[in-house]
Amino acid sequence: MSNGDDGPLTVYGDLKSGNCYKIELLLQRLDRQYQWRQIDILAGAARTPEFLKKNPNGKVPILELADGCILCESNAILCYLATGTPLLPEAAFERARVMQWLFFEQHRHEPNVAEARFIIRFLNQGETEKDRLAEKHQAGYRALDVMEASLSARDFIAGAEYTVADIALYAYSHVADEGGFDLSGYPFIQRWFARIEAQPGYLSLEEARTRHGH
Amino acid sequence: MSNGDDGPLTVYGDLKSGNCYKIELLLQRLDRQYQWRQIDILAGAARTPEFLKKNPNGKVPILELADGCILCESNAILCYLATGTPLLPEAAFERARVMQWLFFEQHRHEPNVAEARFIIRFLNQGETEKDRLAEKHQAGYRALDVMEASLSARDFIAGAEYTVADIALYAYSHVADEGGFDLSGYPFIQRWFARIEAQPGYLSLEEARTRHGH
Repeated sequence: MSNGDDGPLTVYGDLKSGNCYKIELLLQRLDRQYQWRQIDILAGAARTPEFLKKNPNGKVPILELADGCILCESNAILCYLATGTPLLPEAAFERARVMQWLFFEQHRHEPNVAEARFIIRFLNQGETEKDRLAEKHQAGYRALDVMEASLSARDFIAGAEYTVADIALYAYSHVADEGGFDLSGYPFIQRWFARIEAQPGYLSLEEARTRHGH
Repeated sequence: MSNGDDGPLTVYGDLKSGNCYKIELLLQRLDRQYQWRQIDILAGAARTPEFLKKNPNGKVPILELADGCILCESNAILCYLATGTPLLPEAAFERARVMQWLFFEQHRHEPNVAEARFIIRFLNQGETEKDRLAEKHQAGYRALDVMEASLSARDFIAGAEYTVADIALYAYSHVADEGGFDLSGYPFIQRWFARIEAQPGYLSLEEARTRHGH
């Protein structure tokens, strides 16, 4: 199965977005070459006609293959790039367990943990959007509780091994404090952060930003 | 790759939820045997200690294998059960395209199209939750626009073939009117409904409800 090994990859992204940082984390871990194209989401660069031709959903990241084929949705990109590597198990049930956490991330975690951070840090609406933020906090803590329970029983979120599910959930969890979440009551999540940060090829969000000059 | 072929399957679900109907649609299409256990979500049956032991996230559907292993998240269950069938392509890029639409469904579509229906039809809060509903409608129509654009260029959402991405997006799209959405301006989505309803093993949501006696 090809996973884009046969030509240069282009990632269109913005490192304000943890969804984009996920792709960077995986590509570094896999030691893959790629070109990074900055799409400034706050300046509306994901809503231009040119970008919407690539992704009608108007979201980063997107992955462009050498032949011009385009893939959207951060977690679908993770699955594609990790195919054939230990970060995405081959066996059907183990793979489905990884998928379970990837869907959990996009449905229960990112819309709350990431959006709270976006409201506070990038939109500067922490004061004006108090009700909305309170809702995000309540639902976000519920998602973190589910993760904490899982991580109390295993080293990585889907089992004994590091997979793309860890990358997906790490991206916004490790900066949850920027969205007003207090993780001091989540010791298993914190130990899991340390295990991820000790992975070969790990680079911090700050390092990723510096690398791409923004 | 095993996908649960080796023993009886149990689905815990509630056909008020399109997420549960997805699993029924796929199992019927694959002509698989399974046991259906009713979990009345409005009566809190997905929040009992017994259920939370199976899924700490407190959501239906869940799939239980003969060996007691449990899988959560409707779209992960679809991927698991469809592994090795034409409904989930083997080739990495084609599979990733299907994944792209599955993540789109859980992130942009279900939280708006399904939740609007839930507010109106099951919570009876169409009048009291007007602002929330207006937000869901705006974002839901954007998701439907993205689908319509894709379906104007191909027979099924991820390409020329029927896949689990069609099942996932059909489940709530075809009852979007119950959430206050008007699909008369979406001819490609409507023709796609007809193609799905002509699939072997198709059963309507009403038929599924009757089948399980609720």
